[in-house]
Amino acid sequence: METQLSELSGNLAELSYAVDTFYFLISGALVMWMAAGFAMLEAGLVRAKNTTEILTKNILLYSIACVMYLLIGYSIMYIDMPEGGFLPTFGGMIGDENAAIGDSYYSARSDFFFQVVFVATGMSIISGAVAERMKLFAFLAFAVVFTGFIYPIQGAWSWGGGFLSAAGFSDFAGSGIVHMCGAAAALAGVIVLGARKGKYTKDGKINAIPGANMPLATIGTFILWMGWFGFNGGSQLQLSGFDNANAVAQIFLNTNAAAAGGAIAATLVAKLIFGKADLSMALNGALAGLVAITAEPLAPSGQLATLIGAIGGVLVVFSIVGLDKIKIDDPVGAISVHGVVGVFGLIAVVFSNDGATLGAQLYGAFAIFVFTFVASFVVWTVIKAVMGIRVTEEEEYQGMDVIDCGMEAYPEFTTKR
Amino acid sequence: METQLSELSGNLAELSYAVDTFYFLISGALVMWMAAGFAMLEAGLVRAKNTTEILTKNILLYSIACVMYLLIGYSIMYIDMPEGGFLPTFGGMIGDENAAIGDSYYSARSDFFFQVVFVATGMSIISGAVAERMKLFAFLAFAVVFTGFIYPIQGAWSWGGGFLSAAGFSDFAGSGIVHMCGAAAALAGVIVLGARKGKYTKDGKINAIPGANMPLATIGTFILWMGWFGFNGGSQLQLSGFDNANAVAQIFLNTNAAAAGGAIAATLVAKLIFGKADLSMALNGALAGLVAITAEPLAPSGQLATLIGAIGGVLVVFSIVGLDKIKIDDPVGAISVHGVVGVFGLIAVVFSNDGATLGAQLYGAFAIFVFTFVASFVVWTVIKAVMGIRVTEEEEYQGMDVIDCGMEAYPEFTTKR
Amino acid sequence: METQLSELSGNLAELSYAVDTFYFLISGALVMWMAAGFAMLEAGLVRAKNTTEILTKNILLYSIACVMYLLIGYSIMYIDMPEGGFLPTFGGMIGDENAAIGDSYYSARSDFFFQVVFVATGMSIISGAVAERMKLFAFLAFAVVFTGFIYPIQGAWSWGGGFLSAAGFSDFAGSGIVHMCGAAAALAGVIVLGARKGKYTKDGKINAIPGANMPLATIGTFILWMGWFGFNGGSQLQLSGFDNANAVAQIFLNTNAAAAGGAIAATLVAKLIFGKADLSMALNGALAGLVAITAEPLAPSGQLATLIGAIGGVLVVFSIVGLDKIKIDDPVGAISVHGVVGVFGLIAVVFSNDGATLGAQLYGAFAIFVFTFVASFVVWTVIKAVMGIRVTEEEEYQGMDVIDCGMEAYPEFTTKR
Repeated sequence: METQLSELSGNLAELSYAVDTFYFLISGALVMWMAAGFAMLEAGLVRAKNTTEILTKNILLYSIACVMYLLIGYSIMYIDMPEGGFLPTFGGMIGDENAAIGDSYYSARSDFFFQVVFVATGMSIISGAVAERMKLFAFLAFAVVFTGFIYPIQGAWSWGGGFLSAAGFSDFAGSGIVHMCGAAAALAGVIVLGARKGKYTKDGKINAIPGANMPLATIGTFILWMGWFGFNGGSQLQLSGFDNANAVAQIFLNTNAAAAGGAIAATLVAKLIFGKADLSMALNGALAGLVAITAEPLAPSGQLATLIGAIGGVLVVFSIVGLDKIKIDDPVGAISVHGVVGVFGLIAVVFSNDGATLGAQLYGAFAIFVFTFVASFVVWTVIKAVMGIRVTEEEEYQGMDVIDCGMEAYPEFTTKR
Repeated sequence: METQLSELSGNLAELSYAVDTFYFLISGALVMWMAAGFAMLEAGLVRAKNTTEILTKNILLYSIACVMYLLIGYSIMYIDMPEGGFLPTFGGMIGDENAAIGDSYYSARSDFFFQVVFVATGMSIISGAVAERMKLFAFLAFAVVFTGFIYPIQGAWSWGGGFLSAAGFSDFAGSGIVHMCGAAAALAGVIVLGARKGKYTKDGKINAIPGANMPLATIGTFILWMGWFGFNGGSQLQLSGFDNANAVAQIFLNTNAAAAGGAIAATLVAKLIFGKADLSMALNGALAGLVAITAEPLAPSGQLATLIGAIGGVLVVFSIVGLDKIKIDDPVGAISVHGVVGVFGLIAVVFSNDGATLGAQLYGAFAIFVFTFVASFVVWTVIKAVMGIRVTEEEEYQGMDVIDCGMEAYPEFTTKR
Repeated sequence: METQLSELSGNLAELSYAVDTFYFLISGALVMWMAAGFAMLEAGLVRAKNTTEILTKNILLYSIACVMYLLIGYSIMYIDMPEGGFLPTFGGMIGDENAAIGDSYYSARSDFFFQVVFVATGMSIISGAVAERMKLFAFLAFAVVFTGFIYPIQGAWSWGGGFLSAAGFSDFAGSGIVHMCGAAAALAGVIVLGARKGKYTKDGKINAIPGANMPLATIGTFILWMGWFGFNGGSQLQLSGFDNANAVAQIFLNTNAAAAGGAIAATLVAKLIFGKADLSMALNGALAGLVAITAEPLAPSGQLATLIGAIGGVLVVFSIVGLDKIKIDDPVGAISVHGVVGVFGLIAVVFSNDGATLGAQLYGAFAIFVFTFVASFVVWTVIKAVMGIRVTEEEEYQGMDVIDCGMEAYPEFTTKR
């Protein structure tokens, strides 16, 4: 009977291992789905003539992220970082699968799958901000560096056990490490690149350039909303056990509540300011709510999560308007949604997590921002010098689709120019 | 060894708790995804000039549903109803998470998450029926009342242990409680609101007003079909255990089969009547099949489920044609799909569930319909009196998008008016 | 204590049963979702005037597949095949659910649900290749025969324990059994049907006919990519247990890696050949990567999976160009993606699976292709004789939507002809 008991115990451990592995894989599949969300959101918010190119960027950036993270990034981020360190060694690949049940409570491969879709999310944020004027292959070159090196290095500081982790910086699912990091790289790109022709006129006027396909932008937002359940829910990193299961459930509830709060708040603020219920603000409000709750989706109550999301939704409207005033041209509002609100999300951790301090949160935000911004700025500048970063004015007028892809997105629909 | 055994037993209980919680959360995420489905379905079936507004309605109604159900609705529906009662007390919020493993077999928060996406589904049904002429903020005001009060009160009658539950009324996943309830509120709205200009001419002619984007309507239907696996599959409320697992599998199979039967039957009927394979009827047929099986997705065999779905598909064609004849203008056919077929679904329970009686089913359908219709009619009427419910004729001609949202859905595509 | 132990053991077995059943159901839901992916991919790659019809085909072929497989196909494929046999008996329906926990480690109904979505995938492949000129009801008639008989019979040879299984043929998730089979039926259809008017001119020129809506094609590809996690991941057929869980994780990782490799490789090859980053090639490259890894998604490392996917991506570009040269008109490239790359996938099994031989793989590819092609050719020819297979030249010019469906996909967008 001793034997039976021991066998039973082993079987239970194996089933638990399978359940946690499945939880990682399904969470990862949901985060992978966010790549489709970003593609649709961005394709909906650019003009028809630049749609094929942004779609091409999105499918290729995801693919590049998967390859680079497999070959280099994962190892930098989760294997090679010395405890409390700043620079990782650059070792090998993704390591071996667990040899026996005791090595871990879930499959190492499922961890890789979950993490690889995160780096793609970070990169997806960038494509929207630099849309409608950056050369496709310049963008793809940056994607190689960002997903293989920049993202994993700063990620290793917190999630790989580096110095930010030691400093008490707390970022549950990545308001800073994923979202603000992507936004910092995007900001550097936008500065190197400049605004779209005709966006800011010499007499100080700001021209709105409406997106060509709002249903696409909306389904993109819904996809991101859905995928975020995997993004935040999977970041608990364990489902098995009473406390873990309750935690994952609270995270689902809070993630949903924050998005709802963000959409409502942004719509109301936009209605007050512009007099209309601006759909693009409602969508960005929902996304802002999601970004805001991402640094701490577990500790708040549902009510507090709604409030944190709502603050994110208010912030994003003012940020989008403000960035336009200082001529930072971000066609989809990505820097506001992921950057400005990402920083807010890091700060909001202290509202409900007693273990977090404002100092550590700001320190982390600062470190991630400065490193990512500077490194990205250097890379964008090098790309600009080596291969050129911006299409010509004539090409910009014609549209990226014909130039880069040789293919219109909507060849049959007569379009206004 | 006694200790080991007891520990093992505790661990198994915790794993089971985690599995059932995860089952709720994934089911809930699939139902949340239905919000995207309704948004796309409705955006595809309205005209281009009203597309931004229907998208805005959909993302905001989902958000409002989440907030109202968190603050009020869940408590009304699942906590405050006296056994066998008619009116709930109006207590508090969503209650506490389980304190220990014995309190429940799954997380209370996962239950909330699963239920909150249902109320949003109910509300989504309404937006399609009142499309193309209702003021955005009038609609949102109604959403506050419906999701916070009307839906939860009637829901508590059955699922909260109220008088319909005591009367033997059986509605497994909500053909009546969710779908027909939404349709009843929609019908009241359509009557208060009136038909779209130009739909019914004075000489008795009925003008078809085709939807602007059929691929959107189709992806919306596929999304709903997929999400319905969570809607019905999650309504078994437990996955763990031999019988539960088999039940959930049968529900997935039957849900799929009924949708397939509905799509085929509606297409054949439409072909016979109109001479063409009408895509919008195929889509509504699939949805009708899904609504029809929702009241009892477990007891039928796959073959019977196909047949029940097919009957739903036949009904929906005649209902859409019939409602047009009596000048009930429902741009997307929601009242037919969710209301008429919802009632059929309640009746179809008696085909396979020996515990159900036709009397109890009709009693439940009657009670839900009358309450929801009357309450909604009063609320719509109050909204009409206080803030106005319908845009002006000139605004209706111009389209809701410019009026309410200041933004066209497809600004670059030259459109016919 | 003996009793307690036995009870505990029983409970654990039941939980394991529930987990594996859930794994099948979620995998199946993801594969069902691929039906939406094919619908969107194909709707994006045809011209506006044929969009409603291809959407109608897609929703109906999925529905027909579900009904036929329930009534006939599943039984042929998994119940009625004699061991090592060639022809199944034609017995009954889907059989009974397990009566007790020992009968199987998961629900028989969940197995049906998982398998039924595979047959729909096979059929979806066909609709794209014959698009823009085949009569709707001729296509639907073929769907009845293919999903009820052709697919299940050849499927039974391997997965039902027939002669290919006995011959050592190895096709993990169906590069040959699902994808190449669908492509073979499509090829037969294209040959019987002929090319679209204007595709190949008399002076030997090949006219590109661009798709009307590239965002649809892109979301279709992302949906297929996501759904493929269920397609391949579920084909391990068991999640519980240390080795199974690790296997499923490796399959997710490899499936994702192969798609990424395919997208990148196809884009680079297209850039070299055409001078542009051709989005449709990037999309088909990703799909080719997925098809290539499907016959053996478990044994390769992530790096090898990327490479296998990349070879698939290279192949697909040359195949699409090559088929056009021999005037096989396949509007969406389905025969190249699923057929040519499907064969490659079968061969690639020998790269990493020591148990597989090139001989057995080629034997299986040959058997499946010849049977499916010949049987399909006969059926297409009979359909042509009985009801006609192709619309008239005038109807083809006008578009399938008005002819077959009486409904335009984009009635308001002014389109170029």
